[in-house]
Amino acid sequence: MEMQIQANWQGKRHFIAEGASGHSVSIDAKADVGGEDKGVRPMELLLMGLAGCTGIDVTMILEKMRQPLDGFRMEVRGIRREEHPQAFTEIHIYYYIDGQVDEQKAWRAIRLSEETYCSASASLKADIVPHLILNGVEVAQTGAHGGQA
Amino acid sequence: MEMQIQANWQGKRHFIAEGASGHSVSIDAKADVGGEDKGVRPMELLLMGLAGCTGIDVTMILEKMRQPLDGFRMEVRGIRREEHPQAFTEIHIYYYIDGQVDEQKAWRAIRLSEETYCSASASLKADIVPHLILNGVEVAQTGAHGGQA
Repeated sequence: MEMQIQANWQGKRHFIAEGASGHSVSIDAKADVGGEDKGVRPMELLLMGLAGCTGIDVTMILEKMRQPLDGFRMEVRGIRREEHPQAFTEIHIYYYIDGQVDEQKAWRAIRLSEETYCSASASLKADIVPHLILNGVEVAQTGAHGGQA
Repeated sequence: MEMQIQANWQGKRHFIAEGASGHSVSIDAKADVGGEDKGVRPMELLLMGLAGCTGIDVTMILEKMRQPLDGFRMEVRGIRREEHPQAFTEIHIYYYIDGQVDEQKAWRAIRLSEETYCSASASLKADIVPHLILNGVEVAQTGAHGGQA
């Protein structure tokens, strides 16, 4: 199984990337490394890919569980090494879920994504720590695979 | 050191992600998992982040080495597990560099990115294999850290 993208240099630090899906993304650096801020930062793309991957899983699983969503957003915080290479060492995903959703089922959907389905999560070296905020209230993880702080 | 992004659900499998840089990216799945192809695939974003990261490094290093580029593009091929989670196991980066660029310097720039500077590369579990195509001809890696096929 293979996936391919292309990235074409536009001068300075600016690239336009495109995948087989046909959607393109503009990528650029900040001024301190010679960029002109014409696009998203490369390391932001890793966090966005992770968010998209687990977000698609969680919405799909909750739909199958017949748990209707009124709203759903994620915040993803990546903690990076101070030294080069400044890789992510720990990534916190905050799932903000609104609606008549059972908290056990919400956690089960998150765990199924993290442990079984999410290819982006399984591609990253960092420890990934999920958090659930259900209708505005943070809900601790329960159940067999719990225990992540 | 921390970096943060948000991703807001737009219904079905569609998300709009935005980072601190302020640039947003539309993310969606294919129809087979309930998506409508309104944006890039999450796993494409990981490869794009990797391409942007090493592309920014390589253009910056070659500029410092006074090696003028006429053109530069990258193809990134990610090989994935067949089973869930379908993580990347091996990623090939093809650097297509055109211009009056010394081949040793081009390889040195690529190696400096891979081994020292590229945070995206250091964040991914997959084995990353670089390839250099200089003015249309593939050039094998030479020097101390060579040996990757």
